[in-house]
Amino acid sequence: MFEHVEKAPVPLEKVRRYLEPGPIVLVSSACDGRRNIMTMGWHTVMAFSPSLVGCIISAGNHSFEMIRRSRECVINLPATALTDQVVGVGNSSGAEVDKFEHFGLTAQPAERVGAPLIGECHAHFECRLFDDSLVERYNFFIWEVVSARAAVSPEYPETLHYTGDGVFMVAGEIIDRREQFLPQML
Amino acid sequence: MFEHVEKAPVPLEKVRRYLEPGPIVLVSSACDGRRNIMTMGWHTVMAFSPSLVGCIISAGNHSFEMIRRSRECVINLPATALTDQVVGVGNSSGAEVDKFEHFGLTAQPAERVGAPLIGECHAHFECRLFDDSLVERYNFFIWEVVSARAAVSPEYPETLHYTGDGVFMVAGEIIDRREQFLPQML
Repeated sequence: MFEHVEKAPVPLEKVRRYLEPGPIVLVSSACDGRRNIMTMGWHTVMAFSPSLVGCIISAGNHSFEMIRRSRECVINLPATALTDQVVGVGNSSGAEVDKFEHFGLTAQPAERVGAPLIGECHAHFECRLFDDSLVERYNFFIWEVVSARAAVSPEYPETLHYTGDGVFMVAGEIIDRREQFLPQML
Repeated sequence: MFEHVEKAPVPLEKVRRYLEPGPIVLVSSACDGRRNIMTMGWHTVMAFSPSLVGCIISAGNHSFEMIRRSRECVINLPATALTDQVVGVGNSSGAEVDKFEHFGLTAQPAERVGAPLIGECHAHFECRLFDDSLVERYNFFIWEVVSARAAVSPEYPETLHYTGDGVFMVAGEIIDRREQFLPQML
């Protein structure tokens, strides 16, 4: 059963805090009354303001056309409690099952886009398509994050980082080197 | 003093194994008889074959013009033993110091590009510029990895993953979910 977790807005220029470490994410989308989720590991932060994120969504995914046509998605950040769902979502097709129902994930309304959030995730980044110039050639979408929310705790979630071959690295120790940074580099 | 570590070739389509988890990397470059290193966290795998990696190299970096003009670089993967160097390289400018000398890093010849490897790193991905169509607008370079080598052990290095604000997450536990994957997803 879905447990409510307190979430707070994330300033849009702080999205890198969650995505730069390179976690696997769950991308949710909606189009023509249908919805879907895909697992995605090929993404990068591209700018602080506007808050831009680039990612590869292979044309072989059921989500590809839904995302391309709706020009929106939500990038959801799962932690280790959702490992089975991350693997399951990545190994099934939205052409055959409703992944929210099948994997017991809770669709919640987003604030600024039509695609649903995945309630069980630690954080949510609502995205609108900013630049599709590399979609044809590389399946590379450049998104603007237009709304962001994250769970208030834990401060550093146990995110999953995919290495291929069915193996994940789990986020480990946090080390703070702030005192070695120049002020303008923080 | 530099300690020699055994390294072996990495098949180019397996580069994702090292970069998809989202580590901070050290990008080395050479141009007109000068060399430099920068710390970089905004990158993504884009394709298996050719082996493509996209990354943001801000025009404010001393490396930017060297890399744009030489159309080559090496993406080096540091582990926690190099944390001080990662922070130092990211908080200094190649306009003022030779970072190899200043941070005690060992420049080694690459196999297929003119930029040097950083001997102390766990792995090295030699890159040639594949597509510069988004360099003007986003400082986004698309590289083809043309040669790759990695240390034979440890199998999973303790990579650094930057969250901003001077804080790094260190690669933690490895979990193997291979048995839950469809064969075509491996």
